[in-house]
Amino acid sequence: MIAIVKGSASEEQLGHFVQWIENRGLKTDVSRGEDETIVGIIGDTTQIDPFLLESMDIIERVQRVTEPFKKANRKFHPEDTVIDCGYGVKVGGGNFQVMAGPCSVEGRNLIEIARAVKAAGATMLRGGAYKPRTSPYAYQGMGEKGLDLLMEASAELSMPVVTEVMDPRDVQTFLDHGVHVMQIGARNAQNFTLLKEVGKTQVPVLLKRGMSETIDELLMGAEYIMSEGNPNVMLCERGIRTFETRTRNTFDVNAIPVLHHLTHLPVIADPSHSTGYTRYVRPAAYAAVAAGADGLEVEVHDNPSQAWSDGAQALTPEQFDDAMRRIALIREAVCADLPEEE
Amino acid sequence: MIAIVKGSASEEQLGHFVQWIENRGLKTDVSRGEDETIVGIIGDTTQIDPFLLESMDIIERVQRVTEPFKKANRKFHPEDTVIDCGYGVKVGGGNFQVMAGPCSVEGRNLIEIARAVKAAGATMLRGGAYKPRTSPYAYQGMGEKGLDLLMEASAELSMPVVTEVMDPRDVQTFLDHGVHVMQIGARNAQNFTLLKEVGKTQVPVLLKRGMSETIDELLMGAEYIMSEGNPNVMLCERGIRTFETRTRNTFDVNAIPVLHHLTHLPVIADPSHSTGYTRYVRPAAYAAVAAGADGLEVEVHDNPSQAWSDGAQALTPEQFDDAMRRIALIREAVCADLPEEE
Amino acid sequence: MIAIVKGSASEEQLGHFVQWIENRGLKTDVSRGEDETIVGIIGDTTQIDPFLLESMDIIERVQRVTEPFKKANRKFHPEDTVIDCGYGVKVGGGNFQVMAGPCSVEGRNLIEIARAVKAAGATMLRGGAYKPRTSPYAYQGMGEKGLDLLMEASAELSMPVVTEVMDPRDVQTFLDHGVHVMQIGARNAQNFTLLKEVGKTQVPVLLKRGMSETIDELLMGAEYIMSEGNPNVMLCERGIRTFETRTRNTFDVNAIPVLHHLTHLPVIADPSHSTGYTRYVRPAAYAAVAAGADGLEVEVHDNPSQAWSDGAQALTPEQFDDAMRRIALIREAVCADLPEEE
Amino acid sequence: MIAIVKGSASEEQLGHFVQWIENRGLKTDVSRGEDETIVGIIGDTTQIDPFLLESMDIIERVQRVTEPFKKANRKFHPEDTVIDCGYGVKVGGGNFQVMAGPCSVEGRNLIEIARAVKAAGATMLRGGAYKPRTSPYAYQGMGEKGLDLLMEASAELSMPVVTEVMDPRDVQTFLDHGVHVMQIGARNAQNFTLLKEVGKTQVPVLLKRGMSETIDELLMGAEYIMSEGNPNVMLCERGIRTFETRTRNTFDVNAIPVLHHLTHLPVIADPSHSTGYTRYVRPAAYAAVAAGADGLEVEVHDNPSQAWSDGAQALTPEQFDDAMRRIALIREAVCADLPEEE
Repeated sequence: MIAIVKGSASEEQLGHFVQWIENRGLKTDVSRGEDETIVGIIGDTTQIDPFLLESMDIIERVQRVTEPFKKANRKFHPEDTVIDCGYGVKVGGGNFQVMAGPCSVEGRNLIEIARAVKAAGATMLRGGAYKPRTSPYAYQGMGEKGLDLLMEASAELSMPVVTEVMDPRDVQTFLDHGVHVMQIGARNAQNFTLLKEVGKTQVPVLLKRGMSETIDELLMGAEYIMSEGNPNVMLCERGIRTFETRTRNTFDVNAIPVLHHLTHLPVIADPSHSTGYTRYVRPAAYAAVAAGADGLEVEVHDNPSQAWSDGAQALTPEQFDDAMRRIALIREAVCADLPEEE
Repeated sequence: MIAIVKGSASEEQLGHFVQWIENRGLKTDVSRGEDETIVGIIGDTTQIDPFLLESMDIIERVQRVTEPFKKANRKFHPEDTVIDCGYGVKVGGGNFQVMAGPCSVEGRNLIEIARAVKAAGATMLRGGAYKPRTSPYAYQGMGEKGLDLLMEASAELSMPVVTEVMDPRDVQTFLDHGVHVMQIGARNAQNFTLLKEVGKTQVPVLLKRGMSETIDELLMGAEYIMSEGNPNVMLCERGIRTFETRTRNTFDVNAIPVLHHLTHLPVIADPSHSTGYTRYVRPAAYAAVAAGADGLEVEVHDNPSQAWSDGAQALTPEQFDDAMRRIALIREAVCADLPEEE
Repeated sequence: MIAIVKGSASEEQLGHFVQWIENRGLKTDVSRGEDETIVGIIGDTTQIDPFLLESMDIIERVQRVTEPFKKANRKFHPEDTVIDCGYGVKVGGGNFQVMAGPCSVEGRNLIEIARAVKAAGATMLRGGAYKPRTSPYAYQGMGEKGLDLLMEASAELSMPVVTEVMDPRDVQTFLDHGVHVMQIGARNAQNFTLLKEVGKTQVPVLLKRGMSETIDELLMGAEYIMSEGNPNVMLCERGIRTFETRTRNTFDVNAIPVLHHLTHLPVIADPSHSTGYTRYVRPAAYAAVAAGADGLEVEVHDNPSQAWSDGAQALTPEQFDDAMRRIALIREAVCADLPEEE
Repeated sequence: MIAIVKGSASEEQLGHFVQWIENRGLKTDVSRGEDETIVGIIGDTTQIDPFLLESMDIIERVQRVTEPFKKANRKFHPEDTVIDCGYGVKVGGGNFQVMAGPCSVEGRNLIEIARAVKAAGATMLRGGAYKPRTSPYAYQGMGEKGLDLLMEASAELSMPVVTEVMDPRDVQTFLDHGVHVMQIGARNAQNFTLLKEVGKTQVPVLLKRGMSETIDELLMGAEYIMSEGNPNVMLCERGIRTFETRTRNTFDVNAIPVLHHLTHLPVIADPSHSTGYTRYVRPAAYAAVAAGADGLEVEVHDNPSQAWSDGAQALTPEQFDDAMRRIALIREAVCADLPEEE
């Protein structure tokens, strides 16, 4: 961390500042310039709040040198992390997977949808048993009964299950049911209580980006999980909130290569929530794959206008099948070694 | 709710749509125009997802007529809600209160800070025992020991205590300690599990707006608490996330009169988090009071540069004292009946 | 346009409102409900400000039914517009083109860059002679001398030129030089004076989206140009401003299919400004193509670290060549008719 | 400017980088650390693009030390600028003024409105003769005839006039009419052509913040005007674009104290555009004054529902009169020396 001290600071003030830093067990490297003085702060600066330093009278600006995330940082772990989600399904490090299924588990039609998405090439089954809904009066999900249905479909089709956990008291239930991937939703992206709880398990976690979370904050969320002992974290871009209202969220496709640059964790994209309208889901899915995503999470429903939640953004099995074929071609276009040109 | 049906829709398509709506127990009122047809949807439309309707081929646009929040809605409850926080301290309906104290409870200096803020006119004591921190490596608060210190200071000075709860499993502990107001932080603004849990008590709740939460979503958060049976909700504007980086957050001062227009619940402002820098806290506090806030939550610390968290935005007791005197004058300017002009 | 009138409005108030609307030459269709009354407003409502109606005491909400853009609206012009940019280069309606070249024209190295991008498959030459720079102290472009160099390269390579015009007084100069496509930059996206001026010509215009412009506003910008008589407008998504700081802008890839849905005009994407860093330009370009863009505008420089402006986001000719080959494959994946499955 | 060089950079790479900087006439100060090396860049760094440096492989991060604005910077000009707007009306340095009048000049009712706002205490007359409208089909203003009406009212009431200029070719007309303050609207905040043109005069300029302009960019806009020779710039916060839709814009009240900290130029607030609805204009105006604004620009109309543009946010003369009386009291509360406490 670097603190830029104003030229107007006296020697005594500078001395106090250096002392204050060193009292926290950190070292300093002071470099005096004509107009300002630069103080390098060396050691574990994750405990120092840059806003606090900037609020001091003699400080002009503060700049972090090292990112505050460590376990998630590619600098300290250059190799891609590959996560084993069960049934031999791996994500990351060149392994691309598509998680598909209904927004909410609604009943026995789940198995039909699961068969359809598997036939089209999906390798993981998604579906919500516990649903975060903006309104307390909206459908809140089937709960444990939904988990039962998911696990039944999973066993029949040998597909790992991805499903959302909202309450730290439910984590044990998810473990008991053998859920393969626990999803943390956008609204809980900074629910540190919940992050720590799933961090105490070894079950893979799909961590969605919060609606107004920066990429760095998303990585700090992963760090919460990893610092409790669970290294199996997948990150998911699902659209951020902006001023644009023609789509439900703004899909930050840039986040895919940025995350690949900053972290070794797999990066998934959710084109359904990133757009909010069926008609835009496929272009967004193609964009995500073209930008290098390690996987997709897509809502598919056999009868979207009857779906209990988010039917607005579900693909039909036919649309999904078409999309999967194009996705395979796009991945090839992006990943393939090109022949030498003459 | 109103659905605008495209002029290109056939009679049959329109009929299917109307049937679909009526199958959900709602009534319709169809008004055919030259270029489009308007379908009024009458009944409890909170269960209908407008995005789903908009995704249907024949639908042009959908517009909610009634807000989806009911218990928090001023239309159905025109009188201001007044909340009794203990020790005779009331908030709302013309009762203005200032909650002040350190960001985190750090030890026995709490009582000194509490005395100082009380002397300056604060009527409620704020302080965090459980702290949501972006980094898992940052200080996470004193926990239950912090609650003990808060309640001790509260008893000595007869000031109700406001303190944040982050884990639904801690709510009972807060009740056991007799905490007067449970705060829900911005990062948990849509942690519906936690909202429901505090909704099962009768303890007043200070609900902070999420970083990218719309005003309507904030009201739906209040609705979650109220629908569980707890009517004692205070809303808190604490700055939203925008592109501007010269302040930590952008203080949405407009939200104060907008909330007063939409809801009967008291509206508090937090000028400390809304700005992030001590030097801007007082102007923001004055702005909040001028805009009609029912109270302020302000960070005060006897030695901000030693504070364990958020010292960057704490006022000293001297600064706070100056601020409180001006705040009283501003309230008078805004609320007073002006004499007749000649 | 639909106005929802509060249930509390009296017959007299409603009558006044209807009168007020009809005085403006519009018709009304009043539909009384139990809780509210819906007034359909029929006729040319582009002259009515919905904010004004919403500010009236008896009005609950207002909803536009028809978009305020007409000439740019796909509803009234379902066929894709194809724009002829010169040298037989067409954009839109299935014609995909890549515009490449340096951010600024810097001198005679322009011809080398132009040759390189043409060899890699670019069909149009971009380069700035007049540069909008945040700082008045930064390099402002070569001006007319830059136009000369662009036209010289254009003639030699038979590539149409795309270059930015900032001053309405320069439009004639651009015409005199025979510039093929006049670009309107993001900062001038709502400079209506300039939009009208280029609208008086027949030269194709590449209209960039403003940093915080909604998609509807972008279309209204096109409408300004088209309403003056110039139908040759191409729209360009170049990233919007959000809270995220890891990229210079947030590339709103969703805007591509949304624009295709709303308008018949060609949609170009600029992956250079949408990211701001060379290392993210290619993934963003692939995403744009996968999402259905009709073209790309890409910065290429033979020596990016020597470039006078925006070298940070320029590709080298080698990087560009690799990108062009993958782009061709992605287009195929997205556009091709897939074989029947058995 | 400080560049943080990665620990992985070789001596040779570092040497090249230092050479590259010094070739641009700047000096460097290299400070080697264990994990990274800090290169201080000394001299006129306004010509260096920090994004370009960050795009270099060996560079970790770049931090500006000195703000890129100079003439507008309080560091180099600590005293408040006071601007003489004519008729003895001064703005800044403790001089507070209210500019009021209709959004658009509509005809001879202007003089009535002007009399009313003057009677209530306004000292400057605002009104638009040239109107930037989102739609080309909306009313575009009276043009030169509007200027005539403004100057006539101005002369009769001895009030300086504030009115918007949109076209650089109109600046001479504004000078010929004797307009006292030329306003640059939000949509032209980065129309550098127009900024330079008004910079060539000595007429005071009211520069509105762009909808998504950062505070630093607003100051760079002022710098454009000042660098051409016109030091008479007033800045105006008028609301920024965010995700919130309950108001037309989000009033960034924090910008007022931030601007006072960074610049010596006067800071005006526009509560009409910052909210967009009459019912919120007064609270926003009070907030602006409480936060320390040097003036307000407020829309007042004798018959808002008949206004040709933006009637939605106009106050009636009665509302304005009430507001002015409270504003005077708020200014006193904020500015007054408080008596010593015993």
